[in-house]
Order: sequence, then C-alpha cells, then structure tokens
Amino acid sequence: MRSSPQAAIEYVATNQTYYLQQLVEFLRIPSVGTSPAHRADMARAAQWLASFMEHIGLHSIQLIPTDLHPVVYGVWGPDDPEAPTLLVYGHYDVQPADPEEQWHTPPFEPTIQDGNIYARGASDDKGQLLTHLIAAEAYLRTSGKLPVTLKFFIEGQEECGSAGLEDVIQQHRALLTCDAVAISDDGFWDATTPKITIGTRGLVYFEVEIQGPQHDLHSGIYGGAVHNPLQVAAEMIAQLHDAQGRVAIPGFYTRIQPLSPEERHEMERIPFDEERFLREEVGAPALWSGELGYSVRERITARPTLEIHGIRGGFVADGQKTVIPAKATIKLSMRLVPDQDPLEIAQLFEEHIRRIAPPTVRVSVRRLSYAYPALVDRRAPAIQAAVEAYRLGFGTAPVFLRSGGTLPVVADFIRILNVPVVMMGFGLPDDNLHAPNEKLSLAQFFGGIRTAIHFMACLARQSTSLGSG
Amino acid sequence: MRSSPQAAIEYVATNQTYYLQQLVEFLRIPSVGTSPAHRADMARAAQWLASFMEHIGLHSIQLIPTDLHPVVYGVWGPDDPEAPTLLVYGHYDVQPADPEEQWHTPPFEPTIQDGNIYARGASDDKGQLLTHLIAAEAYLRTSGKLPVTLKFFIEGQEECGSAGLEDVIQQHRALLTCDAVAISDDGFWDATTPKITIGTRGLVYFEVEIQGPQHDLHSGIYGGAVHNPLQVAAEMIAQLHDAQGRVAIPGFYTRIQPLSPEERHEMERIPFDEERFLREEVGAPALWSGELGYSVRERITARPTLEIHGIRGGFVADGQKTVIPAKATIKLSMRLVPDQDPLEIAQLFEEHIRRIAPPTVRVSVRRLSYAYPALVDRRAPAIQAAVEAYRLGFGTAPVFLRSGGTLPVVADFIRILNVPVVMMGFGLPDDNLHAPNEKLSLAQFFGGIRTAIHFMACLARQSTSLGSG
Repeated sequence: MRSSPQAAIEYVATNQTYYLQQLVEFLRIPSVGTSPAHRADMARAAQWLASFMEHIGLHSIQLIPTDLHPVVYGVWGPDDPEAPTLLVYGHYDVQPADPEEQWHTPPFEPTIQDGNIYARGASDDKGQLLTHLIAAEAYLRTSGKLPVTLKFFIEGQEECGSAGLEDVIQQHRALLTCDAVAISDDGFWDATTPKITIGTRGLVYFEVEIQGPQHDLHSGIYGGAVHNPLQVAAEMIAQLHDAQGRVAIPGFYTRIQPLSPEERHEMERIPFDEERFLREEVGAPALWSGELGYSVRERITARPTLEIHGIRGGFVADGQKTVIPAKATIKLSMRLVPDQDPLEIAQLFEEHIRRIAPPTVRVSVRRLSYAYPALVDRRAPAIQAAVEAYRLGFGTAPVFLRSGGTLPVVADFIRILNVPVVMMGFGLPDDNLHAPNEKLSLAQFFGGIRTAIHFMACLARQSTSLGSG
Repeated sequence: MRSSPQAAIEYVATNQTYYLQQLVEFLRIPSVGTSPAHRADMARAAQWLASFMEHIGLHSIQLIPTDLHPVVYGVWGPDDPEAPTLLVYGHYDVQPADPEEQWHTPPFEPTIQDGNIYARGASDDKGQLLTHLIAAEAYLRTSGKLPVTLKFFIEGQEECGSAGLEDVIQQHRALLTCDAVAISDDGFWDATTPKITIGTRGLVYFEVEIQGPQHDLHSGIYGGAVHNPLQVAAEMIAQLHDAQGRVAIPGFYTRIQPLSPEERHEMERIPFDEERFLREEVGAPALWSGELGYSVRERITARPTLEIHGIRGGFVADGQKTVIPAKATIKLSMRLVPDQDPLEIAQLFEEHIRRIAPPTVRVSVRRLSYAYPALVDRRAPAIQAAVEAYRLGFGTAPVFLRSGGTLPVVADFIRILNVPVVMMGFGLPDDNLHAPNEKLSLAQFFGGIRTAIHFMACLARQSTSLGSG
C-alpha cells in the first residue's frame, strides 16, 4: 500500500462529524494555563492529547515536565530512515475567557454557528494544532504509514510567555532532532490568501529607574534647585530617537541584514491599505512617519523599534498635587530584527543610558527579558513544501510576510535545532484571538487538515528530489 | 491711662498659666477641616474662637458663611479714627493627624515637654493665630484700649486650599477695610533669626492629555507605525525647557520684575549652605543648575519654574506588558513671580503646547487651578513696624526673604484690599508641620505674643510719624 494524501483527505471528508467531535471535546476543557484555579484542567488537556496520540498510534508518548505545565510529546516512525523528520509545535493552553459577559455563547461550551466553531482556544491554538494530529490519523488509517517521521511537541505555557521553554528544548534536543518545524498558530493574510510567516522580531525589555531626591519634595519649596526625575525621564526618552525617527543608540543598526530588493518588492505587491489601517485599526489622527526611508509595513514587521510602555512616578490620581517625585521609572522595549543580538543591544542601550544620564540623578537599568529575532529562508525545501501544500489544500499559493511580533520559540528552534521553522497558520484575521467570541472557521479547520496532509507528502517529495537532485 | 506695650507684656508674663490653658483648650478640638467626620469639631473650634473674641471684648463678632467652614470675624475699635487698622488673618483648621501611630503623644491631647507643646495645629496655625488674640487681650486688660483698630479674619479652609476664599474677601471687603494685614502662619529663618516673608510665588496647574490611537495597541503589531503617546509626552516635555534651564514658553519671562541688586545682595548675606541643603534636604547626587544666571536660593524663591508632577498612561505595574498606550496625561504646574499673570501664562502655555504638538496625536490642555504671585514692598510702614516689633519681642531683627511656595490668600488681600500683607511667623523650622509630632516652642509662643503686642504699638507709631512727617 503506497501512502496517498488523497486517500487521507477523502477519509477526513467522510469522517467530518467524528473529527468535529474530537475538536469539541478538546475545546471543552478550560485549559487556562495562567490560572492556578485551572491546574486540574491543564492536566486533563495534556492527558487528552496524550490519549489522542496513543489512539492514532504514536509511540514514545510522554509528558515532559517543566516548571509548570508539561509538554506533551509523541512520535510516529521512522519507517523509512531516508524520510525527513517533521516536528510539529503547538500549545494546549488558552487565554483566560474574561470578560465572559461579552461572549455570545459560553467560552467552554463549543458552539457551531454559521460555519464557525466558537470557543476559547478554537483558533489559538487547539483547533490549529489538532489539524496536524488529525492529518496523521487519517493518513495512518488510509495508508498505514506516514511519508515522514513525525514528532509532536505541544506545550502548555505559551500564553505565559513560554517561560523556561528554551531550557526544555536544550535539554531534550536529542528527542527533538528533525529537518523542519511546523507551527500552525497564526493565520491567513486575508479571508482567502494564505500566509507563511518568515520572520519574527526579537525583543529586549527594560526598566530604567531614575532616582533624584531621596524622598518626594514640595515643588514650591524645592522647585528650581532639583532636577525633577520625571523631567529627566522625558529628556532621556527624547534622546532615544533622532529627528529621522531612527533609534539613536550608537551601534543599534550595525548588524541588521538589509531588506533585499526582492523582499521589498514582494511586500509592496501584497495589498496594504494604509488609509483603512489608520482608520479602522489605529484610530489616531495620522500615522507616525517613523524610521525615514521605510514603508509602514516594513516598519511594523522588518525594522526594529523602541517603544515606551509606561512611566511611573509622581502624582497621577485625579486632582492636583505639587510634588517633585523622588523617582521615575521608565518601562520600555525594543523589537529587534535579524541579525541584532538582544544581549548586545542590551549592552549598547545601557551604555547609551549611562552616556545621556545627567549628573543630577542616579540611573539604573534592569533588563526584564529578551528574545531573539528569527528569519527563515523562503527557499528552504520545507517552506517550498508548505507553499505547495497550501496550493493543494486551499487552492491558493501563500504570500510570505514577516510578523512584527515576537515568538521566542521560533528563534529557539532555529538556534538550537538548526532547522527552518514553517509558520503555516490556518486562522482568519477575524478569529478574535485573546478576545471574547474566539472562533475558527470550519472551512479553515478542514482546509488546514488537508494542507497538513499534503505538507507531509510534499516534504517527503522535496526531500527525495533533493536527495536525487 | 496711656496704652503701653510694656504693661501688656508684663500682664502676659504673670498670666502664662492662664494663656497656656487657653492654647491647650483650643488645640484639644480636633478641627480637621478636610474630614467630614470632624464637621462638629470644626463648628466647635469656630465657636471657641468667637467666644474668646467676646471674652476679650471685640464687637461685630460673626461667623461668615462659606461653602464649607465659616470664617470667624471680630473687631476692636475704632477708638482713635486716626489710628491705623490692622487685619489679622489665621486659620483654625488643622491637617489630619495620620499616621497617628507615629505620634509620641496623642495629637489632640496637647502635651508640654522640654519647653514645647506637642499637638496637631500647635504651630499651624492655632498657636500662632492665638498670639494676636492674646496680645489684644493683654493690651486691653492693662491699657483699656488698643493703639490700632484691630480686625480678625480666621478661616477654616486653609488646609483645603482656601477654596472660595477669594470670593468671600471680595464680598466682604467693606468689613475688611484696613491699612495692613498680618499673617503669622510660617516661621523663623533658623532657630534664632526671625524672618519676614515678602514674596510668594503664584501657580498655574495643568493637565495635558495626549490621545494617540483609539485604544491600547500591541507594540509587536503596531510598533513603528504609531506615534506612541508616551513618546510624544516625553518629546513635548523636553521642549518646555531650553538648554539654559529656562522655561521655553515664548513670552514667559516678559512681565517679570527683575531682582534688584539690593535684594540679590541682601539674599546673599543670609547664610545658605548649599552643601547641607543638598545633603540633608534634597539627597540627590547633585543640585540642578536650573535657570542660568541665578543662585539656588533665587531659583527656589524669586524665579519662576515649571515642574512635571506625573505622567499617566501605559503599564506601570510590576513585570512587563508590550503596550502602546492610547493616551498619556501629563500633570504639571508653573510657579510664577511678580508680575506674571497666571491667566496670561496659561494662554501662552496653551499656545506653546498647540505649537509643539505633533499631528499624530490630539492634545488637549485643562487648567486645574491658578493663584497670583505676591510681593510686598519692604519699605512699607507696616513691614518696618514688624521689623521693630521683632527687635523688641525677640531681641533680633528679622531677615527678609521670599517664599517659593504659593499662598493665594496673600495675593488676594493685596489685590482686593490694596494693602501690604505682613507675613510674620513665630514657628521654627523643626515644628513638623503637616507631619507627626507637630509642636510649637513655648518660648516662640510667648515671644510671638510680645512681638504681636509691640507690632500694634509700632504700627500706630509708624502711622503717627508718617502723618506728622
């Protein structure tokens, strides 16, 4: 019996009700990973996944312990030692459902309406990760084997920032050996255009504390003699960008890979309505001109930024108080792009802060977290396999785009396993991730399963053609 | 019988126990004006004052109603229509006593220890205002009359910012007609040097709201396209001072009376230990160089300033959140000096803000309050009378200084009644105003009574010598 994606796809089509039942069962478990009240539910969700893996016929199934919620791991194969190995990453934890009163249907009673399934986690990420498990099951039921060696690595702490996951990947990298990682945890560019995300931005987050006087002072008695720490904070923040909207930290841009003319050209081809973006998403009087020489889309995805998240200090309640605060604290982060190194950038930032800090205050810099940026070569066989899989699964080739956000796990897989990561999402832009009434379109769910089936076959074919080429 | 300050002073000396009893009785009433729980106590304190005035022999005693706590008013005279009229202002409301656990003795059980009386309101202002009432009583008991026409105007809302007092003064300005106002509500320059405060700074307080996007945005998805309102706030604040530490609002300095060489010289003569001021009071690594060309003391008392009191917006809790806030709000105020007009400065500020606001945000400016600056001519006969009174009452001539703080009532009296205000305090720098363990030195209390007695006599003499001169 030769393994055939078409047979698997037909099997799924005739067993839609069964697969929907599995999805509903999985979504019914309120696996809110950030909430101590849901610890038992998290254990149930992990157990549900392990049982499903067992039912499919995976081996080496195990719950890899972490500081909090375990990673669920399972393997099929190797059948053919020459076949490529695919590692599928996903997460079974979900965002909290609150504000619950804004849901039209209960968040943990999955409800099918108008071709969508409404539930917390439907798109992020239970529904999407299930497409790969179902693809494997259907393939195995119809062909008896898979065209690839398949590993699953499904974590439970993504919504807690995947804390400690880098260490888990390091420690278990022998288990995780593979040729490519697939992640289905984002979505289409628009209702009909698939998207492969080829880049994510890194991050480095700081708290800068500016200590002036030893306690709060009265502005009537001391105003004029004391450098107000909030004034210092503002003056220092104003020196973090230059007049061209560039980050003014010396050395900040040194390691950045310039955008290739091909990538810039390709980005321009993908429609992006700045007017609509401003009006419907941002709602400010105008967009910021930002870093000179780059388009809005380049700036929000492929160029680094520095943002102030909060300034603490002084009096902010209603009414008035004439205080010179003893201290001001700035919270800020930078988004980084390849090949900026967050630890090097952190050092450059700290040096810059020391340089611009006036002698009237004591300034200390605390790094709260960091994550590496990631960029995947679109010519990688795994990416080309995904392109073909989308074409076969949805009838449309995907666009390539970078994401402006930060997914530390992507950079971790690339750096530790040294393989490409294929970010192939099946969600839609209106899935209400992290918001009330999260949903997944059933057409996307079943299209995703078809694409996941084809992806395995295409990956095997790419590998063969490379091997024979 | 000729009125004699010496007889009055001797009378006080032989009746110290009685006057201390009066002070203790008055301090025992917990007249916390800001607390609704103490409304009945406020009424008792006002009634206590009215009774004391009656006991002394004042007439026209009345409680002038306000929005909250009444002003207690009473008059002696006129006996000699040529005699000058002195209006004594004070306040019978006190600060809340909390944190009460930090008091060594109960705040409303006045306790005499080591030559001090400890109680909330001992120095601010019950003890100090009482010196003038006791001076009048002793004078009347010994001489049968006063050398001046004397009016008392004792309010109950000073610790609430004297809200509405300007209107009360306006409405009752016929009752308040006088040649000078005396206020004993501050203190000595140091333990042995009396001080007459000849200037107070004005104030204008603003809230500037900077609205960017219509709701908080994720910095990963929108960073680079949106002008972060906290960034805008910092950039705007940085444009409120120039590189010389001057306030950068066009027209801000236009109306300021330059400091006369005499006043600058006199200020320099009064010892001011910048090193100690920095080390013991401020505790910052260094003092701010501030407005170029002015000494620290000039900057904190005789020059205008602009201070940031708070910046609200974004995420300031522990941990991290990568938010671009929709809105930032700046709280700031300016201290003003004669002849800056707070309403004109407010307009200049609003125009400057509109000029520097970038087109990426909506900026609105709200004026929360204002107060006029005040300056008293030190050559005024009432000031010279106070100098002589201090010399006789304490054996030391006072220094003249401006206060950096704001006392709206001073400017109100000057502007509405068109008379000099004599700020002649008897407290000491370590009286713990607005803090636990407030106290008044008994030596200062009785010295204050002597000075208040001499002040009436000196004022009458100054007036006669002017009349005959």
